[in-house]
Amino acid sequence: MKRDNLADRLLDAVDEKKNPSVVGLDPRLWRVPDHLKKRAKMETDDPFKAAGEAIFEFNKGIIDGVHDIVPAVKPQVAFYEKYGVEGIRAFKKTIEYAKEKGLIVIEDVKRNDIGSTAKAYASAHLGEVDLIDKDALSFDGDMVTVNPYLGSDGIEPFVEVCEEHGKGIFVLDKTSNPSSSELQDLTTEDGKKIYEVMAELIDEWGKDLIGDRGYSSVGVVVGATYPEEAETLRDIMKNNLFLVPGYGTQGGTADDVIPCFNDEGYGAIVNSSRGIDYAYEDDEEYDPEEFDRASRKAALEMKDDIMKSLKKGDKVPEDW
Amino acid sequence: MKRDNLADRLLDAVDEKKNPSVVGLDPRLWRVPDHLKKRAKMETDDPFKAAGEAIFEFNKGIIDGVHDIVPAVKPQVAFYEKYGVEGIRAFKKTIEYAKEKGLIVIEDVKRNDIGSTAKAYASAHLGEVDLIDKDALSFDGDMVTVNPYLGSDGIEPFVEVCEEHGKGIFVLDKTSNPSSSELQDLTTEDGKKIYEVMAELIDEWGKDLIGDRGYSSVGVVVGATYPEEAETLRDIMKNNLFLVPGYGTQGGTADDVIPCFNDEGYGAIVNSSRGIDYAYEDDEEYDPEEFDRASRKAALEMKDDIMKSLKKGDKVPEDW
Repeated sequence: MKRDNLADRLLDAVDEKKNPSVVGLDPRLWRVPDHLKKRAKMETDDPFKAAGEAIFEFNKGIIDGVHDIVPAVKPQVAFYEKYGVEGIRAFKKTIEYAKEKGLIVIEDVKRNDIGSTAKAYASAHLGEVDLIDKDALSFDGDMVTVNPYLGSDGIEPFVEVCEEHGKGIFVLDKTSNPSSSELQDLTTEDGKKIYEVMAELIDEWGKDLIGDRGYSSVGVVVGATYPEEAETLRDIMKNNLFLVPGYGTQGGTADDVIPCFNDEGYGAIVNSSRGIDYAYEDDEEYDPEEFDRASRKAALEMKDDIMKSLKKGDKVPEDW
Repeated sequence: MKRDNLADRLLDAVDEKKNPSVVGLDPRLWRVPDHLKKRAKMETDDPFKAAGEAIFEFNKGIIDGVHDIVPAVKPQVAFYEKYGVEGIRAFKKTIEYAKEKGLIVIEDVKRNDIGSTAKAYASAHLGEVDLIDKDALSFDGDMVTVNPYLGSDGIEPFVEVCEEHGKGIFVLDKTSNPSSSELQDLTTEDGKKIYEVMAELIDEWGKDLIGDRGYSSVGVVVGATYPEEAETLRDIMKNNLFLVPGYGTQGGTADDVIPCFNDEGYGAIVNSSRGIDYAYEDDEEYDPEEFDRASRKAALEMKDDIMKSLKKGDKVPEDW
């Protein structure tokens, strides 16, 4: 049975893989193995096309390496947008390929704008767009990240598209970067942190999209680098899935992400990008040509690492 | 002499046109005149290509109609991103065409992310990107809008690229939409509004990019729909150019935008998108085929409207 609620689908996929971790696809061209770049250059004289092709082939290898281990991938659009038309072509092909391989695709786009423009973004990434005389799917991702700085106007058009098309969003709340405190940690005159105020809003935005498994298709981004804040936020947002970046290269540990999970071991997915994508660089077992196998190994290690911490916190899901 | 500070360039362009207004290029396909859509459909069987082509031809007409009147155009990327690869192609062609016509191009992208990712966005839109064995310009806009929710980490990579390449940014502060109050108007325990706290940060981020004319290439977005807040913000950010959306369709009037200008009549540019782009729909003087002339007329009316209010406020620049 195909679930029509994205949170249900995502939690089913987590159960199927017995793994709440997600692989970020952030292709930095200078770290893509040389053989892929050489091959791409031989196929075209257009350096942007070659860049796009090398990036897509890199992603394809990583997806092949991890698709049976993780429930979802998270391509970060900035690393594709860099290459303009050809980068966006690689982005779209990556989404298509990952979906073919049965993965849920979280487009990390952090889009945001006033209502009528937010609607355009939502239709582009999650819904259908109007062509000259018909409507059609465009990027057709499963979920996107969105930025809440503009308030409800900028979020509601996404929520509507999620409801109509069975898609989901993750709203930024407490982000993983060091300077996230500058705005997000300010205290209001009511004694609340901004990230707590936002949490109440996010909880509210997601109320109508709660699926059979108790979670809303409106999720939230909470950095692995802030475990104490995560504990507070888990209390406020009982029905929102946490997308947790910041594990690995950014400094967050498996223990740090445990507060993001509920007592039954659900409610969070943890992302690692650089640690998986470029695993081949530090792995003496594999040649650069075997980058996909190095990524697979790193993804398995990440799974084990998180499982160990879930066990320690007595939060392993019952049926796993 | 080519100015290497974007704020200087923009103010020179405002002086040259004697006009601080900007035309937003927000192509909504269903409002693009039929003859352009028919022509685009005849040229290709690919409906996404046809959409992109119709959009570009529409923009070309508007740019032809207004290029000698306004200093800058502001394409809103959401309306291009909708159409994936072909939409981005239209976006890039629009930037190129507007620059050929001597216009400054403000890409309204509201990008934001953690440092390493923000760097990718900055290089994509304002700087150079790394290809397989060389660097090259990608979108090569003059300015972009950025979202400050992540704090300094997400802004500094843009500031660095601005410095290196003579480009500029506008950071969202108090946005034009109704729900902007939900976060931006909260009061901190120190009695400051969030938009005031952000203003202090934006002022700080721009300190090293102040040009000969006293303004920084780090500007700020302040909605025309909030004139009182604009007055407060003008006081805090004495060296930051205001990009003022919300005039026209969104409800802001010419009088509302006057507080965004300094006493000499500088320091702000006012954007109108829908009111200019679709002027032909309500103008009985012109047929849809003459949409460019209707847009030109609307752009001239907007200029007059703002000039009248600048006069009323005794803020017309000395040499105009």
